Amino acid sequence: MPIVNIQITREGSTPGAFAATAEEKAALIKGVSQLLLDVLKKPLSSTFVVIDEVDTENWGRGGLPVDQFRQQQGSGSPE
Amino acid sequence: MPIVNIQITREGSTPGAFAATAEEKAALIKGVSQLLLDVLKKPLSSTFVVIDEVDTENWGRGGLPVDQFRQQQGSGSPE
Amino acid sequence: MPIVNIQITREGSTPGAFAATAEEKAALIKGVSQLLLDVLKKPLSSTFVVIDEVDTENWGRGGLPVDQFRQQQGSGSPE
Amino acid sequence: MPIVNIQITREGSTPGAFAATAEEKAALIKGVSQLLLDVLKKPLSSTFVVIDEVDTENWGRGGLPVDQFRQQQGSGSPE
Amino acid sequence: MPIVNIQITREGSTPGAFAATAEEKAALIKGVSQLLLDVLKKPLSSTFVVIDEVDTENWGRGGLPVDQFRQQQGSGSPE
Amino acid sequence: MPIVNIQITREGSTPGAFAATAEEKAALIKGVSQLLLDVLKKPLSSTFVVIDEVDTENWGRGGLPVDQFRQQQGSGSPE
Repeated sequence: MPIVNIQITREGSTPGAFAATAEEKAALIKGVSQLLLDVLKKPLSSTFVVIDEVDTENWGRGGLPVDQFRQQQGSGSPE
Repeated sequence: MPIVNIQITREGSTPGAFAATAEEKAALIKGVSQLLLDVLKKPLSSTFVVIDEVDTENWGRGGLPVDQFRQQQGSGSPE
Repeated sequence: MPIVNIQITREGSTPGAFAATAEEKAALIKGVSQLLLDVLKKPLSSTFVVIDEVDTENWGRGGLPVDQFRQQQGSGSPE
Repeated sequence: MPIVNIQITREGSTPGAFAATAEEKAALIKGVSQLLLDVLKKPLSSTFVVIDEVDTENWGRGGLPVDQFRQQQGSGSPE
Repeated sequence: MPIVNIQITREGSTPGAFAATAEEKAALIKGVSQLLLDVLKKPLSSTFVVIDEVDTENWGRGGLPVDQFRQQQGSGSPE
Repeated sequence: MPIVNIQITREGSTPGAFAATAEEKAALIKGVSQLLLDVLKKPLSSTFVVIDEVDTENWGRGGLPVDQFRQQQGSGSPE
């Protein structure tokens, strides 16, 4: 009866999207539940998944808020 | 000095309610703090409780977002 | 389908005990699951509980490891 | 830069195993990182995964420690 | 490659502020990342920080929602 | 009343050490509690800190257990 928590930044993966879509979230839920069935034989019905979307100003890396970290790395991509 | 984290879906427990009410949250805080006093003798003042409300599209079970899981189970109840 | 995480220090609630007992853990699981049924009408079978025992040197309060904090407070009790 | 936390009970998926093996853990890490690349285009190097193994007496479901819950359900399987 | 999660109540630290500011969050991210470098020699780039802001009605202490706890303590300060 | 959770790999920061020492943990607790006082004016006594040490085989990055990730990066350092 696994519990999976997925923390992601609140932003889109495609131009014009500002957050993960319901379809993307459903794909994460389906994929990780299937993974636990494949690897550890956990029935799908026993796995709980919680997706936690975090505003980019609340996420830090390299000692910086993530937007500034990406600028410093020369990358604007939604890493 | 326990820390209790309660994750629930963001939805009401009664018709017309769209989320747990302040009264329901206060009852959760009171009840779980009392439980830690009763069972482990932790003073009320030492227990921290955080309630985390999760949108239903961010919660998965059975490999599906929870709304779809409930439909599949033939249940629309806010389980 | 709530998820409850209870973090406690790894220590006993009675003389001679060095950790919460299996009976105490069972009482926490039973009590908090019942609470979610009473307050939010969540079926018992839908609630997951995880108890996380933390070594006292890994727990801090007042800027100090918890054992030192208690000494400073003039209290040796397993708060 | 997602963070994935996977909580599982500490028990084996095959007879004679008492915990997830290093190979099974590696498969979980690989699989969930690939999933975040496939679904949200997150580079593998940006995903952190933490697996948290929980003793069965610290895991509750249905208001019971998980071993008792499984007995009640007539199932001894490592769900 | 540490992961730091900071949970705070959603409220301001100065009159007229209703939440931690972007500058305050950046200072938390910078400070805790530097701390892990100083104490454990973890490179800044390896540390992830997530700040989690919690509504005061979702935070409990002393068996009460935090606003009521503060009133009881005779303190309105954003402890 | 902040709650800070610090997850680190279970390994030493100096030759011959196999885990963070009690002194290093105390320095983390002191430092992060002071940071919350400096930045958000949270009293030391209101901050809880939990340090969570994770076995390296339970920590993944780049789709690999962390020991393999470091080898791939040509780095054996306890990043």
